[in-house]
Amino acid sequence: MNTNELRTVWWENANVCLIDQLRLPHEQVTVRCQTVDEVARAIKTMQVRGAPAIGCTAAYGMALAARNSVATTVEALIEELYQAKATLDAQRPTAVNLMWATKRMLQKAITSSNEPELLRQRLLDEAHAILHEDLDMCHAIGEYGAPLIPERGNVLTHCNAGGLATAGYGTALAPIRTAHSQGRTIHVHVDETRPFLQGARLTAWELREAGIPQTLITDNMAGFMMSRGNVDCIIVGADRIVANGDVANKIGTYSLAVLAQYHKIPFYVAAPFSTVDLSLASGDLIPIEERSPDEVTHIGGRLVAPEHVVAAHPAFDVTPNDLITAIITEQGVIRPPFDQGLFGLGRRDG
Amino acid sequence: MNTNELRTVWWENANVCLIDQLRLPHEQVTVRCQTVDEVARAIKTMQVRGAPAIGCTAAYGMALAARNSVATTVEALIEELYQAKATLDAQRPTAVNLMWATKRMLQKAITSSNEPELLRQRLLDEAHAILHEDLDMCHAIGEYGAPLIPERGNVLTHCNAGGLATAGYGTALAPIRTAHSQGRTIHVHVDETRPFLQGARLTAWELREAGIPQTLITDNMAGFMMSRGNVDCIIVGADRIVANGDVANKIGTYSLAVLAQYHKIPFYVAAPFSTVDLSLASGDLIPIEERSPDEVTHIGGRLVAPEHVVAAHPAFDVTPNDLITAIITEQGVIRPPFDQGLFGLGRRDG
Repeated sequence: MNTNELRTVWWENANVCLIDQLRLPHEQVTVRCQTVDEVARAIKTMQVRGAPAIGCTAAYGMALAARNSVATTVEALIEELYQAKATLDAQRPTAVNLMWATKRMLQKAITSSNEPELLRQRLLDEAHAILHEDLDMCHAIGEYGAPLIPERGNVLTHCNAGGLATAGYGTALAPIRTAHSQGRTIHVHVDETRPFLQGARLTAWELREAGIPQTLITDNMAGFMMSRGNVDCIIVGADRIVANGDVANKIGTYSLAVLAQYHKIPFYVAAPFSTVDLSLASGDLIPIEERSPDEVTHIGGRLVAPEHVVAAHPAFDVTPNDLITAIITEQGVIRPPFDQGLFGLGRRDG
Repeated sequence: MNTNELRTVWWENANVCLIDQLRLPHEQVTVRCQTVDEVARAIKTMQVRGAPAIGCTAAYGMALAARNSVATTVEALIEELYQAKATLDAQRPTAVNLMWATKRMLQKAITSSNEPELLRQRLLDEAHAILHEDLDMCHAIGEYGAPLIPERGNVLTHCNAGGLATAGYGTALAPIRTAHSQGRTIHVHVDETRPFLQGARLTAWELREAGIPQTLITDNMAGFMMSRGNVDCIIVGADRIVANGDVANKIGTYSLAVLAQYHKIPFYVAAPFSTVDLSLASGDLIPIEERSPDEVTHIGGRLVAPEHVVAAHPAFDVTPNDLITAIITEQGVIRPPFDQGLFGLGRRDG
């Protein structure tokens, strides 16, 4: 890994370590998880967030479960790993990478060794492999996505699908980072992304660290910026992409896609194959996580609304395939029609 | 005035009094302005906001200027009133009611009396008249607008075009209040309205005080709620309506109108005639106030973004006439085509 890059999750002294994303942008603090329950809590409380980063974290969580187990047989160890997977999977229902990573780790456990200590090492190797694949994936998305950014280079993004949402480098931010590193003129409009302010707190921090010019806006300014001709394309990440190309992503993504269509602005989704869930035919089947209304009524722990007001907090929405210009993956750019079998029959560039 | 109604601005012991809208929803505090400069500051800092409420406040500000003046001739007094008008008008460039109210007060001064003390009294009477006309206007908007709310009664609104934005009762909230008072089932989705959170702080407070069921959402959830069939119509206020029916209103309004069209949901603007500016042919001529980026990077005085990040803060946007289903005024409901001469030739119901 390029040492100039962000490290979001790593293994150190038999701990799963994370940048505490709740403390950014004001403080850079490391969370050290010593148990699966601590890893689960970090996922639940969003100290780590972003589908690929959650996947890497959960993979290390499985390696940690194996490491902490006192099981003396592979059978007993695998039984504990099933429990660890159930614990981890329960934390965030929408992001498919979480289940994908824990399933891969479990399969590795089942197939790799009949010797518990060797199995523990194999699982740690597998988690490292997932992390390095994730970084490679991000760089590939950057290479495929950078040429899609129009000449003038004004990109709008939502939430944080950056290095902090992955092992590093990012998905939606990867084409932006790559284009910037190629010396192109790039400017990013960053949606602040209420209620959790991932844009204001995380994307703005990442872009500043990377030296990429940006303008922070509130979510409701995006349409205005499009109407003024200040946005050449939109690139967002994805929490789950289903068989027909419908995309679940952070709440607000769907509205941006509708606005992009109205303004005839390309709308790109950048995501790895691990985000694809072919088991679901269309987006209406994706479970939408409802988080605490307190995250809407409070900002930074401070109540901003009247006491006891009812609030809703759907954390994600679903963007239908017909609003998506293309999906940028680590294997190339996939264009519609997605519904002819997304990653099987869809036309690919690059 | 019905004493059960909210008082937003009033005259008391030769002071212009206001509910301090920066302190809501947690505290109900009165601001007492003793000079025109204090009134100007209250407008500038948004202790009072909402186009009609600003108009009423500015009218009382002119009465206060006359009262505080030591001029012994009408000519000298009118000269001071010109200065007061210039001071007040400079505070908020987008809302036309401000200029409308100060101009009306100045014209009253010019035409009403040759005796300074009598002129002072006439100006106070005129300010009272503007306030009572405002309340009557709001109730008329309520009567005309209530029948437009579909049977199921799910309304979405943005910002605060409520009693707090007027002398009382509201513009966008007037049809909601009237329908509710008629015993109809009404539920309001309240956009929190970043960056100033007028929805979360003010509309949610007003609806709670009025006992009207509501759900607070972040601005970027509105499209999701529409896609789920949870919104039957949208009603917003206006800061300025120009000759072709284009509407300037709080940032985010335009995006809602685009989303409403996509979802085939009626999009209504509720506003008095004092909001109409026939001197401008179309919305692209409306000046858009740029407020401090600190209001985007900070929430409740607390920095939520990295230090020194660039942020934009257009406080308003313009919704083109073709996205507006109808404009609800105190004289009836005006439907398109607006561009045949808005309030002259437009078709009216009711």
